[in-house]
Amino acid sequence: MTSPTTASVRADGRAADELRPITITRRFLSAGEGSVLVEFGNTKVLCVASFTEGVPRWRKGSGEGWVTAEYSMLPRATDSRSDRESVRGKVGGRTHEISRLIGRSLRAIIDVSALGENTIVLDCDVLQADGGTRTAAITGAYVALADAVDWAQGKRLIKPGRTVLTDSVAAVSVGIIDGVPMLDLPYVEDVRAETDMNVVVTGSGTFVEVQGTAEHAPFDRAELDALLDLAVGGTATLSALQQAALAAAPGDGSATRAVTA
Amino acid sequence: MTSPTTASVRADGRAADELRPITITRRFLSAGEGSVLVEFGNTKVLCVASFTEGVPRWRKGSGEGWVTAEYSMLPRATDSRSDRESVRGKVGGRTHEISRLIGRSLRAIIDVSALGENTIVLDCDVLQADGGTRTAAITGAYVALADAVDWAQGKRLIKPGRTVLTDSVAAVSVGIIDGVPMLDLPYVEDVRAETDMNVVVTGSGTFVEVQGTAEHAPFDRAELDALLDLAVGGTATLSALQQAALAAAPGDGSATRAVTA
Amino acid sequence: MTSPTTASVRADGRAADELRPITITRRFLSAGEGSVLVEFGNTKVLCVASFTEGVPRWRKGSGEGWVTAEYSMLPRATDSRSDRESVRGKVGGRTHEISRLIGRSLRAIIDVSALGENTIVLDCDVLQADGGTRTAAITGAYVALADAVDWAQGKRLIKPGRTVLTDSVAAVSVGIIDGVPMLDLPYVEDVRAETDMNVVVTGSGTFVEVQGTAEHAPFDRAELDALLDLAVGGTATLSALQQAALAAAPGDGSATRAVTA
Amino acid sequence: MTSPTTASVRADGRAADELRPITITRRFLSAGEGSVLVEFGNTKVLCVASFTEGVPRWRKGSGEGWVTAEYSMLPRATDSRSDRESVRGKVGGRTHEISRLIGRSLRAIIDVSALGENTIVLDCDVLQADGGTRTAAITGAYVALADAVDWAQGKRLIKPGRTVLTDSVAAVSVGIIDGVPMLDLPYVEDVRAETDMNVVVTGSGTFVEVQGTAEHAPFDRAELDALLDLAVGGTATLSALQQAALAAAPGDGSATRAVTA
Amino acid sequence: MTSPTTASVRADGRAADELRPITITRRFLSAGEGSVLVEFGNTKVLCVASFTEGVPRWRKGSGEGWVTAEYSMLPRATDSRSDRESVRGKVGGRTHEISRLIGRSLRAIIDVSALGENTIVLDCDVLQADGGTRTAAITGAYVALADAVDWAQGKRLIKPGRTVLTDSVAAVSVGIIDGVPMLDLPYVEDVRAETDMNVVVTGSGTFVEVQGTAEHAPFDRAELDALLDLAVGGTATLSALQQAALAAAPGDGSATRAVTA
Amino acid sequence: MTSPTTASVRADGRAADELRPITITRRFLSAGEGSVLVEFGNTKVLCVASFTEGVPRWRKGSGEGWVTAEYSMLPRATDSRSDRESVRGKVGGRTHEISRLIGRSLRAIIDVSALGENTIVLDCDVLQADGGTRTAAITGAYVALADAVDWAQGKRLIKPGRTVLTDSVAAVSVGIIDGVPMLDLPYVEDVRAETDMNVVVTGSGTFVEVQGTAEHAPFDRAELDALLDLAVGGTATLSALQQAALAAAPGDGSATRAVTA
Repeated sequence: MTSPTTASVRADGRAADELRPITITRRFLSAGEGSVLVEFGNTKVLCVASFTEGVPRWRKGSGEGWVTAEYSMLPRATDSRSDRESVRGKVGGRTHEISRLIGRSLRAIIDVSALGENTIVLDCDVLQADGGTRTAAITGAYVALADAVDWAQGKRLIKPGRTVLTDSVAAVSVGIIDGVPMLDLPYVEDVRAETDMNVVVTGSGTFVEVQGTAEHAPFDRAELDALLDLAVGGTATLSALQQAALAAAPGDGSATRAVTA
Repeated sequence: MTSPTTASVRADGRAADELRPITITRRFLSAGEGSVLVEFGNTKVLCVASFTEGVPRWRKGSGEGWVTAEYSMLPRATDSRSDRESVRGKVGGRTHEISRLIGRSLRAIIDVSALGENTIVLDCDVLQADGGTRTAAITGAYVALADAVDWAQGKRLIKPGRTVLTDSVAAVSVGIIDGVPMLDLPYVEDVRAETDMNVVVTGSGTFVEVQGTAEHAPFDRAELDALLDLAVGGTATLSALQQAALAAAPGDGSATRAVTA
Repeated sequence: MTSPTTASVRADGRAADELRPITITRRFLSAGEGSVLVEFGNTKVLCVASFTEGVPRWRKGSGEGWVTAEYSMLPRATDSRSDRESVRGKVGGRTHEISRLIGRSLRAIIDVSALGENTIVLDCDVLQADGGTRTAAITGAYVALADAVDWAQGKRLIKPGRTVLTDSVAAVSVGIIDGVPMLDLPYVEDVRAETDMNVVVTGSGTFVEVQGTAEHAPFDRAELDALLDLAVGGTATLSALQQAALAAAPGDGSATRAVTA
Repeated sequence: MTSPTTASVRADGRAADELRPITITRRFLSAGEGSVLVEFGNTKVLCVASFTEGVPRWRKGSGEGWVTAEYSMLPRATDSRSDRESVRGKVGGRTHEISRLIGRSLRAIIDVSALGENTIVLDCDVLQADGGTRTAAITGAYVALADAVDWAQGKRLIKPGRTVLTDSVAAVSVGIIDGVPMLDLPYVEDVRAETDMNVVVTGSGTFVEVQGTAEHAPFDRAELDALLDLAVGGTATLSALQQAALAAAPGDGSATRAVTA
Repeated sequence: MTSPTTASVRADGRAADELRPITITRRFLSAGEGSVLVEFGNTKVLCVASFTEGVPRWRKGSGEGWVTAEYSMLPRATDSRSDRESVRGKVGGRTHEISRLIGRSLRAIIDVSALGENTIVLDCDVLQADGGTRTAAITGAYVALADAVDWAQGKRLIKPGRTVLTDSVAAVSVGIIDGVPMLDLPYVEDVRAETDMNVVVTGSGTFVEVQGTAEHAPFDRAELDALLDLAVGGTATLSALQQAALAAAPGDGSATRAVTA
Repeated sequence: MTSPTTASVRADGRAADELRPITITRRFLSAGEGSVLVEFGNTKVLCVASFTEGVPRWRKGSGEGWVTAEYSMLPRATDSRSDRESVRGKVGGRTHEISRLIGRSLRAIIDVSALGENTIVLDCDVLQADGGTRTAAITGAYVALADAVDWAQGKRLIKPGRTVLTDSVAAVSVGIIDGVPMLDLPYVEDVRAETDMNVVVTGSGTFVEVQGTAEHAPFDRAELDALLDLAVGGTATLSALQQAALAAAPGDGSATRAVTA
């Protein structure tokens, strides 16, 4: 393992511990109780929250709400066109896996009992993919979720006086490339990484998900520790940006945008 | 039938023969040989053209190319969320019908022999739906198609010296509401229309598709004529905007935007 | 555009404005509240109406009924065998599109409020296809529908004293071949047509659907007018035949047949 | 077990060992290398043979041909309408089972080596169902198959000088009702039968399939023997009718009809 | 037809009328109200009975219970791996057919009225296939069913004082190989058989199902009789083994095994 | 976080850092190039390796082989019966996710270039589920894979002289229950765990996958470290058992069994 402080290893000129430019645009659409376009460099994901009263049948009478997510890629989000899953007639394994990850990440920071018997669905559609789509989706979906909760509280659809969101949540990818641990991998780095890890972290800095995979070579404990350090640093920056985005509140409901410096 | 010149019938203040504000943003994405975000008022459709060498098996050896389209709506494009077709496991009838319409409209103005054995797929994904999604999709897809043809000619993937696009194509919806023929219906008008018609017209003013449907009451020949007149006028404006969008050509490949006055 | 009166252009010896021989056989089956075998030349479509009390869930409590249609082709209806849609596991776009067209056409002439909360499904199965299957299906389905309404009124399943069918409906295809507008195209003409149009017209002569498509070349307003004139003439003949078929009423419920002269 | 000679047990007045009126109409359609409408009383099945050169991939190079069948019911073939299998998105177990039975029955009497590397598909679509649809389908499909073989020999698509069909094949249902073995059950008898058996027999009187099922009570050896006797008698009559149908040979290719006395 | 007493015709050294070694292991799993591993030579099928209170909707209020079965093969049960039906997205015709056969066989010996409104599902999963999987499944499923009924009576989920199982049921395959009728065919014999028959027989010796198929040559009445004789003998042995398996009753619920001598 | 050495917290009497009884039975079936029944307490998974020459199309000509896995649960593996995925017509998200995990884990320790253009599929079917099915599957699949590689080398289907398996691989679940980190969770513990982690470790002690999920509460770095320590200890024991299982080599190919002390 080489030190992460090694200069100039990255094609886009970033330091090993530096995020790509991040943009969070709230109220991107007029539909949706929350709608966010999140960009991690060239990766663009549209995250829309839909609030509905009531819960799925298996949860009725529990007094608890439900939050779930669906992730999908537009056919030409990537460099070569993929067939639509609707045309193939089934949702692929990767899509399912990422949808489940986003849903679990958001449920970790919501008090379903304070939400009451209401459902919020987060649709995360990748308009353009350049690595890190699942981590961008989690980061943007949190903001859309917060807007939807706020909307429902304003409409008195959620009982007042209780904290629905117990924390915030953001995510970032990290990986080891040519022996160097790096933060927030674009596609060209992702395919070369020996080890790839997605880390979901709360605003308080605790872990929600740690998913590390040896793509080309198993990794040791020291490498794992270095990757976790990078991820904790990156998500702290993302959390701050989420708070900044949510702090902007124009009276006219127009779009707002928070961008990393 | 009431005269289309009747003032102030429309909720958004438009005259009966007036289009909504139209925006065509080229190079909306960096992926895709052509990518256009087209907006008809609040309707927003992302049209991406994908060029690939070769044709489907049934067309091999013909010397002719193929152009096809796939239309889809994001789950929360509309006011209440719809299930994804990928999750339901099949593409619905309406989706199929509109995809086929877009494909036919584009094939009417392309010389498949000049295209050579190449395929261009137009993905039209509705980000936000407020009526007229299919007509916006055709109008935007033409611009994305023109960019893809231009790209392929630049790369010499299409033989030079032949005109691939024999004309341009645009589309608009018209309908009769409370007896008044009106142009470019948003959702609130569309559901009230007695008759609804989608008209696809070339830049030269000839018809590619005329699809009129009596939703609540059959229509007579005079009504049909008034609707066609409105549509021909509206598509002439759209054709001019398409040409303006295609005329803009920044050297750096950045996005360009053409907007109705 | 050449004059439609030009003699002897058609392989089957018809004049440009002449229908193929048309046959409507009522009570073709003993099952079904209405069952009609309709023939437009070699095109044979079996149209069966099924009446059931009650309506789909989304319509319950509205006091209104529902009429829908399903179109399908037997695998060897055409010259070469096609795979069954049941075996492929999904209904194709063309099938969906035609089913929707038939349903809309019938709903245009039925008073769903007079029908009450009852459902009528029209199954239109093409036994043999030689062009114009959708227009034959609409024409036959109307007769099956009328029989089903009559049956339900006889059984007092529909409240008496109200007119359920406000008009009749028939359909025909028209097209331009070698510059000549022609009525009721068989397959060999259909594939050669520059423009193809399906027109659905009520017994009173108003339009329910106008669907014109430029297959090989865009069409102008004069051509469109000529095609509409032909279609209005053809559907008037079909309406008269429908009335003749429905007028025949043998006491023993045996099949009856109405044929063009 | 009661003697099958007991008089007047059946609602339609038949003797226990008597077939329903049987009709075989050849050349029912102009499409198809063989097309037969077969009727066993009110049961009506359209059997169409499609001949294609070549065989499925797994059989290529074997020098042997392939014969297969697909059975299906129109939605309103029965007294109450069933959903289409194409709409449900899958073929049901019963449909599969009967399709396989028809295919096996036909393969038992064809010399696939004499057929050469050609495929014949038999589509058996039930227009109206009143019991015995699978046995009617086998009986009609044989005639359509014989026509298709004859057509292919006329076109020299099958090498001359070899016998392709080594025998004929027909089928009938038998069952025990109130203790009495009976031949050729219509629906009202079928649902009451204690035991139901479908028997497929060659023109020479040997068995191809024997499928007996105790619906309400297990059956003993004597009952089994009585049912087989009835079936052998019934299929002998059907075989004679098939030969009569195939003997008719009008030069103009028009439909021919063979009917039981 | 050659005499079944001919010596030493079989690769595994068995006499023509001899079963393979049969093993019935009860309580193979701790899940399931009855779970049996049944082995016919190298054929191994896991049969698990699941008891649930209530019946499918169409049977509610009838006072009667329901018994059904699902058969499936693991991908590598056979010599070369098959794709999973879950991956192919549909259940094949053979699987459906066998599932239906097992269900019918079990329903023939259960008094659904004594069962009350309860459902028992029998899952028969083939771990290893060497011919006769459906007959092994029926034989094992009966034992699992008996255990599930016994369990439910112990829990008072079935009303006491009535006989739920009116008989036992077992099944075996028979076939004619090189003219010799033989009992219980392994795969190598099955593929060579001219005629293949599966026979389902009650403990009292009456028939529930007789399914004979001419695979390569039609069979005559004498051959049919010889096959039935063999099957009745074989199933009598299987019935005795089932009773022996069910007689074993260790207090600790551990697995028990009954094996042919 | 409480110390993992706290005594007697577990229902089955195990210490916090103790595995359940583990059994590895090789050659459980006669089909399959490797077949292993692996048991982690009451969890029983059948892992079968299928070797085929050739690779999927997208890998042809690469000189490299392919290893993939399919995981599935029998319907009654769990306490209440689940519908089969084949009957539902699609593979669920959880199944996909686990299949992908098993495949990745095995590919981490195989040299695909030494494997040559051959494919090995690992089918992991859960006969009985009591927590840890995916980790048991990985542990058993490695042994089946090793047998399949050995078989192929014996048949000279893989070129000699190269090491195909570069390491071994095993997996175990760990979790925090009532604040105490614990090893190898059965179902009753799994549902109560605040955090659940699956760790895949090579025989050399490096990580292949680390998948930690906060089910009820986010976890901190110290908890993560404690879980990783437990997992590394548990997988070391599993690796030793795998080696013991593979060391047993009876000449007669009969089943062998390795069991934890």
